Amino acid sequence: MGKLKVMVNGLPGNMAGVVARQIYSDDRFDLLPHSLTGPEISATEHTVEGFNIRLIDPDARKAAITELKNSESAFISVDYTHPAAVNENAQFYCNHSLPFVMGTTGGDRKLLEDTVAASSIPAVIAPNMAKQIVGFQAMVEYAAETFPGLFKGYSLQIRESHQEGKADTSGTAKAMVKYFNALGTPFSTDEIVMERDPAIQKASWGIPEEYLAGHGWHTYTLVSDDKTVRFEFSHNVNGREVYGKGTLDAVLYLSEKISAGAEGKIYTMIDVLKGS
Amino acid sequence: MGKLKVMVNGLPGNMAGVVARQIYSDDRFDLLPHSLTGPEISATEHTVEGFNIRLIDPDARKAAITELKNSESAFISVDYTHPAAVNENAQFYCNHSLPFVMGTTGGDRKLLEDTVAASSIPAVIAPNMAKQIVGFQAMVEYAAETFPGLFKGYSLQIRESHQEGKADTSGTAKAMVKYFNALGTPFSTDEIVMERDPAIQKASWGIPEEYLAGHGWHTYTLVSDDKTVRFEFSHNVNGREVYGKGTLDAVLYLSEKISAGAEGKIYTMIDVLKGS
Repeated sequence: MGKLKVMVNGLPGNMAGVVARQIYSDDRFDLLPHSLTGPEISATEHTVEGFNIRLIDPDARKAAITELKNSESAFISVDYTHPAAVNENAQFYCNHSLPFVMGTTGGDRKLLEDTVAASSIPAVIAPNMAKQIVGFQAMVEYAAETFPGLFKGYSLQIRESHQEGKADTSGTAKAMVKYFNALGTPFSTDEIVMERDPAIQKASWGIPEEYLAGHGWHTYTLVSDDKTVRFEFSHNVNGREVYGKGTLDAVLYLSEKISAGAEGKIYTMIDVLKGS
Repeated sequence: MGKLKVMVNGLPGNMAGVVARQIYSDDRFDLLPHSLTGPEISATEHTVEGFNIRLIDPDARKAAITELKNSESAFISVDYTHPAAVNENAQFYCNHSLPFVMGTTGGDRKLLEDTVAASSIPAVIAPNMAKQIVGFQAMVEYAAETFPGLFKGYSLQIRESHQEGKADTSGTAKAMVKYFNALGTPFSTDEIVMERDPAIQKASWGIPEEYLAGHGWHTYTLVSDDKTVRFEFSHNVNGREVYGKGTLDAVLYLSEKISAGAEGKIYTMIDVLKGS
């Protein structure tokens, strides 16, 4: 089997940059020297490990993709763009029969799914590409469904730390709340303790200096009413490498589905986990 | 519904003492003032919260049970005795049609199950009565079965601390190793780090002084090969209260099964969890 051709859209964004570098450095893939970018980007080129990539602005994308489809054999598109672009991009990929991995969060998720379902291409849609975190969430969901009330009488504390620029509460932490509720611990998402102060992150949490600008640390603590039992689960991610790795796995998974003839199908990270 | 009569066997042992106290203090139960004890016990009486309980030595147990079955309506037996007594006691309960909850570890577990299966009574057999720990193990087992290789490339560390008198490695920690192996981390049970030194437990682990003589703390740490991702799961139990609570839940569960006409059936703590 030849190398898998991948187009990474969203350069010069951070996540697109990580994925482009990982794709470029991995023998299983061939990175296309083209990337769809947003209207706010004035640069026309971006370099990854010395490899030049042309940035295609929205006005030029249709002509560029038509040309690319003629010059290249099949390729997979990876989208790390902007919440405001999610639906438009998905429609674009579907219109041009470009199977894609959507790593961008936000937008209208229902419309996103409907767009793929009505199309002739399969897609992996995954707001969280960190496979191990998705697996951990699935574990807790399993417990919530199988052993409701298991932690009845326990108090819950959820703490999360992210880089200063992240304004909203972690979506991962919020998603976990409903599972812990089902496990018997009353808790609302506004009780999640957020840390955004780099000084405290460094001094109290022990987050390495180099990752103050990019990390996601989560801790879930359960304590029994008589205080004799304490459970603690934490997942601490520094930087963005793990999301890149998950994205590459999603690309490989999607490639298998394309080979198997999948059309109009949506896959999640749980599918990718089960398939690997 | 009247109170549920319970006979707690194994007094004056620690776990039997905890369960007898919890049963005695709980309005849903009626603690019988009799307890089967071992040949090495010379005392003839044991007091729980001011309540006197007669200790019945092995030679007297047959006559005593025959008398009890005449004087009392149906009751459930709880066994926290000694590994060497597990099979003999189970046979005794079965011979006398006494449904039981077996919290004692050790003995011939296959024979134990066969004994119940051939009898007219149901039993709950659970080497670990801490419901939340059993639930956590089931979560990790689920992940191992559903997402094999999820933590491929991660290194694993397992640390456990127990009171100085516990010579062997934690059975709970050992049982978890095979799940982590299936999740992709090579690890053998002899790599588990055991702590039995009270000075270190207090100074480094932060285990409260009052629980140095009775605790079970476990920590599982997974670190990605590039060190950017760290997962940590811990369950720290101080004292024995949580095992007592699980035992009471097992008694309630068994009572329901008896009412439903169960015979020769064996239930585990997973059944109790699902049923609650």
